[in-house]
Amino acid sequence: MTILNAAVVGYGNLGKGAEAAIQAAPDMRLAGIFTRRDPASLATDSPCYRLDDLPDFRGSIDVCLLCGGSATDLFDQAPWVAGMFNTADSFDTHARIPEYHQKVQASAAPSRHAAVISAGWDPGLFSLHRLIMESVLPQGSTATFWGPGVSQGHSDAVRRLPGVLDAVQYTIPREEALEKARLGQAGALSPRDKHRRVCYVLAQEGADTADIERQITTMPNYFSEYDTEVHFISADDMARHRRAMPHAGRVIRQGRTVPEHGQLMEFSLQLSSNPGFTASALVAYARAACRLASEGCYGAFTAFDVPPAYLSPLPWEDLVRRLM
Amino acid sequence: MTILNAAVVGYGNLGKGAEAAIQAAPDMRLAGIFTRRDPASLATDSPCYRLDDLPDFRGSIDVCLLCGGSATDLFDQAPWVAGMFNTADSFDTHARIPEYHQKVQASAAPSRHAAVISAGWDPGLFSLHRLIMESVLPQGSTATFWGPGVSQGHSDAVRRLPGVLDAVQYTIPREEALEKARLGQAGALSPRDKHRRVCYVLAQEGADTADIERQITTMPNYFSEYDTEVHFISADDMARHRRAMPHAGRVIRQGRTVPEHGQLMEFSLQLSSNPGFTASALVAYARAACRLASEGCYGAFTAFDVPPAYLSPLPWEDLVRRLM
Repeated sequence: MTILNAAVVGYGNLGKGAEAAIQAAPDMRLAGIFTRRDPASLATDSPCYRLDDLPDFRGSIDVCLLCGGSATDLFDQAPWVAGMFNTADSFDTHARIPEYHQKVQASAAPSRHAAVISAGWDPGLFSLHRLIMESVLPQGSTATFWGPGVSQGHSDAVRRLPGVLDAVQYTIPREEALEKARLGQAGALSPRDKHRRVCYVLAQEGADTADIERQITTMPNYFSEYDTEVHFISADDMARHRRAMPHAGRVIRQGRTVPEHGQLMEFSLQLSSNPGFTASALVAYARAACRLASEGCYGAFTAFDVPPAYLSPLPWEDLVRRLM
Repeated sequence: MTILNAAVVGYGNLGKGAEAAIQAAPDMRLAGIFTRRDPASLATDSPCYRLDDLPDFRGSIDVCLLCGGSATDLFDQAPWVAGMFNTADSFDTHARIPEYHQKVQASAAPSRHAAVISAGWDPGLFSLHRLIMESVLPQGSTATFWGPGVSQGHSDAVRRLPGVLDAVQYTIPREEALEKARLGQAGALSPRDKHRRVCYVLAQEGADTADIERQITTMPNYFSEYDTEVHFISADDMARHRRAMPHAGRVIRQGRTVPEHGQLMEFSLQLSSNPGFTASALVAYARAACRLASEGCYGAFTAFDVPPAYLSPLPWEDLVRRLM
């Protein structure tokens, strides 16, 4: 088994998950953690380096797991790193993926590296399922549901409101909507039909909670299209909500092969740690990036492009004998 | 969109499903049905030909969907056809897949064709999930469940008993076992724990039904390791059981990213027509076979080897924009 030297770039929740997932992979060695902070300040026993020093590691790192945020870091950082190393990332701003792909491609291809982008669970494994399901059942309808679990973007939107010290937002799929999707009626479901939202808010002492609640429930794009519950809680309760990062979701496709034959496919995840799972998917796609590059396939790739056997460290013959 | 001329080889239940699935595919035209029977005897409006005449169609067929039985037909037929055309099949004798792969490879590779083997749902889509799940969550346990649905092999085994005119065998997963698999306790489950079996039997007039029941429930490999119910039914009831070919199944993996973080992945199918769904998977992999061959990739392939985007007739840019 070839041992891959894998580096973690960025050390937030996802980076911590990537550190653990690399250590658990039988074919990887953690080459180091690269951070914009003071490397000595990270609470880990792993070797830590300044992000600026990453170029010095050319030749000793096989793949970088990019664990920065999509909104702030990856758009510029991924092309920079993919010009020096193979990479895997979980870039998740769905609307910008084509543009991001082009930018990474333009850097990875001429420098002869492979970069697998948007390889978390959504985008990533869920995208893969939307594709496989639609390809196998061309007549039908697909629905993606998220939760019950914490949505980071919605939590952040609440945190930005005046008078809010901290907030956590749970996205919760509606059982009736899941049942409709399984009956092939996903097309008729509005956002409000599919999910509801529950916010836990720690307000400043003396804040106008009724006004905060009104600002949340009427917030366009984030909450106004949904039924939203708002609960004001104590600092202790908030600490509990902030510790766990559970999430869940499912992709459902109901289709027909001939008109009278309904066929149902469903893929679901139930995660007690969202960043831990995303990091595990990243490790599998980082391995695939190394394999693609070793075969002379350079540029930017998605989960749609990776032969599934490349996700495993095990020999093809073993996979076929044991798993086929 | 390139239009592919697709042929159906074998016209049992799976062949009928393949005929319908090709007609439903936006990028395929049915080139014909090839049969060992008298072509005029098939109840279809599609063009039908003798299997022996298949070699005459070189140059006008892009891919053959092999719809014969694994036990009797495919082992010799697939290498023969893959020497002339691209192919897709759902060869499902799990233990013989490596040997089958070698035989098909030896024929397809030198003749510059691509043959995707074992591309139904199990083996096929379920194999793909066992691979993806294990790759993403290397610490954990996977369990595959089948049913509730009709198992062809077990039904055949009962039909072969003296005194039995017809039989249908339902495989039924146990709810308690599904729950244990979701908790990561799949390793402790015996065959009896995971599934039970229910047989509906049409006996000959005057047959010793108690003896038939004893022969079924004690039959090694098929029933002795399971709890099996046997019901003797009328010819009318049997006709009803024989019409529908529902099946279902699921792959469950429970794993851990760090010791305290349980993560659950589950993929399930609920099919009102087993052959109709298998045929739909075959069409997607037949398309992939054509794509592989068009890129100069020749030989035998499995679902582990096919980049998922090759399953779709749609342009990559559209898939990424819409499904990623």
